[in-house]
Amino acid sequence: MKEKIVALAGGVGGAKLAYGLAHCKNPENLTVIVNTADDFEHYGLYICPDLDTVCYNLAEISNLNMGWGRGEDSFVTLSECIKYGGPSWFTIGDKDLGIHLERTRRLIAGDLLSDITKTFCEKLNIRSHIIPMTNQKVTTILNTIDMGKLAFQEYFVHQECKPRIKEIWFEGIENAFPCDEIFQTIDKADLIIICPSNPWVSIDPILSLSGLRDAIINKKVIAVSPIIQNKAIKGPAAKMFSELGFLPSACSVAEHYKGLIKGFVFDSIDINEMERINRSGIISFATNTIMKSNQDKVRLAREVINFSRNF
Amino acid sequence: MKEKIVALAGGVGGAKLAYGLAHCKNPENLTVIVNTADDFEHYGLYICPDLDTVCYNLAEISNLNMGWGRGEDSFVTLSECIKYGGPSWFTIGDKDLGIHLERTRRLIAGDLLSDITKTFCEKLNIRSHIIPMTNQKVTTILNTIDMGKLAFQEYFVHQECKPRIKEIWFEGIENAFPCDEIFQTIDKADLIIICPSNPWVSIDPILSLSGLRDAIINKKVIAVSPIIQNKAIKGPAAKMFSELGFLPSACSVAEHYKGLIKGFVFDSIDINEMERINRSGIISFATNTIMKSNQDKVRLAREVINFSRNF
Repeated sequence: MKEKIVALAGGVGGAKLAYGLAHCKNPENLTVIVNTADDFEHYGLYICPDLDTVCYNLAEISNLNMGWGRGEDSFVTLSECIKYGGPSWFTIGDKDLGIHLERTRRLIAGDLLSDITKTFCEKLNIRSHIIPMTNQKVTTILNTIDMGKLAFQEYFVHQECKPRIKEIWFEGIENAFPCDEIFQTIDKADLIIICPSNPWVSIDPILSLSGLRDAIINKKVIAVSPIIQNKAIKGPAAKMFSELGFLPSACSVAEHYKGLIKGFVFDSIDINEMERINRSGIISFATNTIMKSNQDKVRLAREVINFSRNF
Repeated sequence: MKEKIVALAGGVGGAKLAYGLAHCKNPENLTVIVNTADDFEHYGLYICPDLDTVCYNLAEISNLNMGWGRGEDSFVTLSECIKYGGPSWFTIGDKDLGIHLERTRRLIAGDLLSDITKTFCEKLNIRSHIIPMTNQKVTTILNTIDMGKLAFQEYFVHQECKPRIKEIWFEGIENAFPCDEIFQTIDKADLIIICPSNPWVSIDPILSLSGLRDAIINKKVIAVSPIIQNKAIKGPAAKMFSELGFLPSACSVAEHYKGLIKGFVFDSIDINEMERINRSGIISFATNTIMKSNQDKVRLAREVINFSRNF
C-alpha cells in the first residue's frame, strides 16, 4: 500500500476494514477518522465506543466474537456496580475499563481527545493514525416514535434499537470542528474510503462537521456498503433506512453518498443492483464484502484499493 | 449491647473498633460517623477511603492484611490504566472499583453521599448505621516544609507521609454541615466513642464541623488511643504529633481531646502514663488495645463499653 489512505469509520464494520487496510503493507500510510457522536458518559466515565473499537481492532486486542470490547476480558467491577444497584445495560469489562478511566482522567486534566488517542495508539503499538473526528462534544440524538428523543447508546444498547426512528440529528455539530490534523491528512491523501459503517449514525456525523465534506469532495472517495441483501451485517442501519423512508439496499447506500463518492463497493450477492448504482454516475465494484476472518478483512481492503486504481 | 453508641471513625483503626462494637450484640444500636476529609477525585472517580474501609470491615469483605480495600481482589483495570500512562500510586482493585464507580454515578445524578452510603450498607447487609460526617466537600490540607500544600491522599499515599508537616487545615469546613441524621443520633446516644483513629486528620475534621463538638460535649464521650508506646499502629499519627510539637504518647492523645472526653482507653504497655492522664481530670482505663484478630476487636469494644458503665 503506497497510497496514503484516509478511512472514515464508525464501530465494528469500520474497524474491520481499517484492520484490513492497516495490513495492506505500510500501516503508517493509513489514517482512520473515527466517529465520536456515539460517545457518552456512564458511571462518570467518558466512553468513546467507536474510537475504542478501532483502536482495539488495530492493536489486535479486541474481542473478535463481539467485534467490540477487549478479548479475554473479565467483569469483576461491573458485577460489583450491579450489586450496589448500578445499571447493567452497558457492558464494560475490567480490561476495557482501563481505557475509559485513563481517558476520563486526562480529559479532566484538560488534554484533548485527539492527544489522548495518540498516546493510546503509541502504548498499543498501533502504527496507523487514529483521529477522533472532533475534540468537541457532538451527540447523536434519535427522535423516536415510541420513546421520544434518545441519545445513541441509550437507543442502541439500552433499548436494543427497538424504538422506531423519525429523525436523527447531531447535537453540538454546529459548534464542533474537525481535529487539527484532519484537513492536512485529507489534503495529502490519495484515497478516501468510507468504511462499511452505518451511514446515518457513524459516517454522517463525520461528514456533517464544518468543512469536512468540502475537503473530500474533490478527492477520490470510495464507499463500501454496510448493507448486504437488504440487511446490515450488524446494527440498525437497515432498520434506519426503512424507518426513514428508504429501501435498505446497497443502492440506497450509494445514493446516500451521491455527489460525494466516485466509487462504490458492494456485495456480489446484490449484483442485480449494479446497473442502478452505475446509472447514478458512480463506478461500482461487486465482491464478497463479508469480513469474518482477518484474511477476509485484508482481502477486501486490497480489493478496494485495487479498484480505486482503475479511476 | 443495649446502649445506643455513636462512634467517630477514620479509616483502618476506626473500622476495626467499629467492627468490634457492631459485634457486641445489636449492630443496629451502633452508628459510625465517618471522616470524609480524606475523600478525593482520582481518574474521575469520587473516592471515600474511610467510608469504604468502615463499610468493607463491617460487611466483612475487607482485605484483613491491608486493613483497607477488598479481600481477594484483582488489579486488571489498574494495570491497564498504568499501561496507558495513568498514575499507579493509588491502588484500586477491580472489586473495590465498583463502589467508586457507582458512588460517582449517583453523585453525578444528584444523590447525597449519605443516601448513597445508606444504599451501600443495605446492599452489603450492614445492620449498623454508617453516616459520612458531611455531604459537603471538605478536604484535609497538609502544609509541609518540604513540598508545600498537599491534599491528604497525595501526602499519605503518594508521598508516603514523608514531607514534614507545619500545619493542617480542613478546606471547606466553614461551609460544611454534619449530615441531617447526625444530631438526632447523637441526641439519642448513650455513649460516644472516639475510635483509635488519627486525631489530627481523622477525628479533628469531624469535630470541626459546625455544631458537632457542642452536640457531644455534654454526652458520655470516651476516646481510645491510637498511640501505643509512642508509635501509631498504622499511619502518620505519631509523626504528626512530633512535627506539630507534641510528644507522641497516649497522654498527648488524651490532652488533644481534653474538655471533650470523660473517659480514655489506652494500652497497658503505657501504664506509666496513667497518673498524668488522670491528673487532667480524665478517667482512664488501660488494656490491650492492639486489634489483630476479630476476637481482639470484639474484646476491646466490650471492654470500652464496660468501662463506660462505670461513670
